[in-house]
Formats: sequence, structure tokens, C-alpha cells
Amino acid sequence: MPIVAKSDLSAENKAHASYLLRCGQLLFLITAPYSATISTVDTNTASIPTFSHAACRAFIAAHGLAVRSVAIEVDDAELAYSISVSNGAKSFSLPITLGEPENSVVISEVQVYNDAVLRYISYTKPTVDIASTFLSGFEPIETSSSFPGQNYDLRCLDHAFGTVPELASAVNYLKSFTGFHKFAEIGGEDIGTIESWLNTVCLACNDETVILGLCEPVYGTPWTSQILTYFEHNEGPGFQHLALESEDIFWTLREMKQRSGFGGLALMPPPLRLTTGI
Amino acid sequence: MPIVAKSDLSAENKAHASYLLRCGQLLFLITAPYSATISTVDTNTASIPTFSHAACRAFIAAHGLAVRSVAIEVDDAELAYSISVSNGAKSFSLPITLGEPENSVVISEVQVYNDAVLRYISYTKPTVDIASTFLSGFEPIETSSSFPGQNYDLRCLDHAFGTVPELASAVNYLKSFTGFHKFAEIGGEDIGTIESWLNTVCLACNDETVILGLCEPVYGTPWTSQILTYFEHNEGPGFQHLALESEDIFWTLREMKQRSGFGGLALMPPPLRLTTGI
Repeated sequence: MPIVAKSDLSAENKAHASYLLRCGQLLFLITAPYSATISTVDTNTASIPTFSHAACRAFIAAHGLAVRSVAIEVDDAELAYSISVSNGAKSFSLPITLGEPENSVVISEVQVYNDAVLRYISYTKPTVDIASTFLSGFEPIETSSSFPGQNYDLRCLDHAFGTVPELASAVNYLKSFTGFHKFAEIGGEDIGTIESWLNTVCLACNDETVILGLCEPVYGTPWTSQILTYFEHNEGPGFQHLALESEDIFWTLREMKQRSGFGGLALMPPPLRLTTGI
Repeated sequence: MPIVAKSDLSAENKAHASYLLRCGQLLFLITAPYSATISTVDTNTASIPTFSHAACRAFIAAHGLAVRSVAIEVDDAELAYSISVSNGAKSFSLPITLGEPENSVVISEVQVYNDAVLRYISYTKPTVDIASTFLSGFEPIETSSSFPGQNYDLRCLDHAFGTVPELASAVNYLKSFTGFHKFAEIGGEDIGTIESWLNTVCLACNDETVILGLCEPVYGTPWTSQILTYFEHNEGPGFQHLALESEDIFWTLREMKQRSGFGGLALMPPPLRLTTGI
């Protein structure tokens, strides 16, 4: 995926380095903190307004490389926030408006589990050129200086999946403030592999374009649930996977595999049995 | 560079994940800590005997991705350590012997600057197969499962270079316990670029196969020294660069450049004027 925008020292950001990768509607924002000392002196240069140096370091110390937020584009991030909070969502960041009123970006965040958040983001103008309008403080990167050819035709996020110790309360929490409905529910026997068991529930928005999944470990089986192992290593709940939609999954994986030898993703071997019927 | 050995969860190491990359005599060991909670429970599974979870996290928080130690193979890491310490070196780790006496590895560490160390390592038997004998707890990785083709014909470390606030005392410190002699000395005017100035001294062992360089910022010039910028972002002294020897620098860089688009190293543009005569 090509890097389409950046905010780092070269863009006068002394708090963090952030790179925005894009393919289709899919955007990945990867952020690393700069020196704590410099950041303390120059506190106002962060281009992600909810960035906190202390929180960022604590997150990395607990989770390593992990997903901190899943951002959902909404019509009004201020309204989405106030409706969510009045329906029980725990606040992580009050709405913050960036830019001029006629061409602004609004960001707000609510807790999804542990220190992982749902980020609401809204643009007053349609985002025709995401690289230029993503967030103020980001500079678009010319295609020529980026990595052409690294496009695996990934379209968008199909769903984001999180792990929780107990499904029912987590589902109720998310349903209450998002208004999402139950889209699918799968028990341990349906997707148990030889190594682990888990229960899952998927929630979706009205038109089912946004899907958030949750899973809990199944206890009392001969095998330790992979979700318990996840909790151990992630030091608690968090996003477990992001499912990406591609035009042609076989082509995408073939392309990824071909390039994994040059430092790309190392693909896992297929599981013994995960789902039948493929 | 292919990964030739690993020590991680799959090798029962619950403290850290470490991967050993090798090309010629050049070895890179890259380490990341696992969960602090797990590591506290299983303290004895670290395969790098000087690994400390707290120190590792503190190092990453201060320096980010950086060189923590430069390891020098010596005849006797216990003797090298005791001679160094009796000549003023600050100890970082007492000698630790791993494996059976007839086929052991000894490791010891002394401070070079800040929390960067010189690691002495000695093997009782010649290291004919580094992937198998590197450290106990490491498992060799078969070439077939590694990344063939990623070999840029790098031979060895030519020199390691560190930054210090004041050259004279740092040179005296290193000379005193290593017995190294002054190999080269270059002032700011010789290698000042349009952007920065620095002074350097290189120290070498008797046969000049091991070279350690040091540099300090030059003050009072129209430009801020790049070394001062380094101190700001690294939060103090540390290794600034590792110079690698290749068979053919033009071929090596051409190969690296070809693959940088797939997630490899992003090469910097050449400086305006660094050294004349090339």
C-alpha cells in the first residue's frame, strides 16, 4: 500500500511520526512517538489532536504493535459523540474541530474496550482528496516518491474484531451507544479449531456497511482458548484482527506472498480446519 | 539478509522475541520484549542472559529503534571483562557462562556511553555454524523458510560510531580499558557539511580490524550540529551509525534500492558535499 500522506519532523511535528497508507477506501494510520523530552517542550505540534505522549508509550508498553483505534466516518462526529455518551459510551476524547468552519474535520473518541477506541471522524466537505484533507498537519506524498506497485487491490475494511473476557456485557455496551444490531452469532462448536474455542457476536449498522465483531474465550474445554492467550500477551482486551476486503483474495494473497520475501508480511500457514465449504 | 536463528515464543522464550540476521561475518540481533506481565511470571526463559525487561522498555522509550550493544568476539569474555573493569570500564553485566564447559559461550558487557554497551562474547569451540551455536535458546532457521535472495553481499562491520557531548574524555575512557589506539582524527572543517559540523576520533585495536569511532558536536558555528539534534531525539549519547563493508558498494546499493519499494530500507539522497575525491 502506498504512503499517501505524512506528518513527522519534516512537517514540523515534534510529537509523533505518522504515515497514512491508502488502498481504495482503506486507510491505515501508523504512528510512533518521538522523544518524550522534545514532546514535553513542544506540546502543540501533534497533528493527531487526541495524541498523548504518555498514553502512546503506555499503549506500546502493554500491547506492542497493535490497533489503538478504528475510525468510522460519520456525518457529524460531534453529534455521534454526544449521542454515544448519553447512551452509556465511555468518553475518550471530546469532539475536536480542526481547520476553518467551512472546511473542517471533527474528531471524537469513545472507549470500545480497554484502551482501544472507536474514533468518529467527519468532514464538512466531501473528502475528494484524502491525502490533502486528511488532517491538518499532514502533507500529501507524491506518488513518485512513494512505493508504487505495492497495491494489493484491497478495497475497504470488511469488519474489525475485538476480544473481551465476557461477551454479553460487551455486546450490550456496544449496542447501547451505537444502535448497531446483531448481525451474526457463532458458538465455539462452529468455529472451534483443534487448538482453541471461542464464541463470537457480530454487530452491524443499519445498512450493514460497518461491522464490529466481538469474541470471548470458551472455558472448560481440553484446549486453552486462543483468546485467553491473546489476553496474556496483549495484557487485556483489544482489537484482535481487521478483516480486509479485496477484489480477488487469491490474487491478493499470491501478490503478498511473492513480496513477503523482501520484508513484507510473513503469511501464516492455513489452519487445519477453520471453516468448511470454501 | 536472511534470518538464520530465532528465539521467541515458538522456542519457549516468554521474555523476548529475538531474530538473528546474518550476511558474511555480519550479524544483526533484533529484539523486542513480550508482555511485562508474562515476563514477570516466567523470568527464566530469556535466551539473552543480559536481557532485562525493565531496561529494554526504558531503552525503547528513550531511544526508539536503536543500537543497544555492539558485540566484539574475543578469546575470553571473562578476561576481557576483568581487564576492562580494572582499567576503569563501567560494568553493565558480569560474565555469564552458557552451555557445557567444553562447548560454552561467555558474555559480558561494559558501558560505552549512556545505556549503550560493548558486549564481549567468546566461544570455547570455533563457531563453525553460528545459527546452531549462537546462544542456547536460539533455534536455527532453515534457509528454505527464510528469505532467500535478500543478500546484499555485506561482509562485516567496518566500524561502529557513537556520539558524545565531549570527545576528549570519551576517547580517554574507551582507550583506557580497550587498549585501542588512535587511528584517525578529523575536525569539523574536514567533514562539515552545509548543515552541520562535528569532530571525530576513531580508535582501533592492534591489527585495526575493530574500529570504534566517536564524534562530538561543534559549537559556535552558524548551523546547529547534527550531533546536537541527535542528542535531542535520542535523549542523550548513543550509537549513531554502523558502517558496513560490502564487496561492491555500487552493486549493494543498486540491489537495496531495487527492493526498497517492497518495504525495505528507504535510502537517503546523497548529501551535497560530504567527502571529496569519490
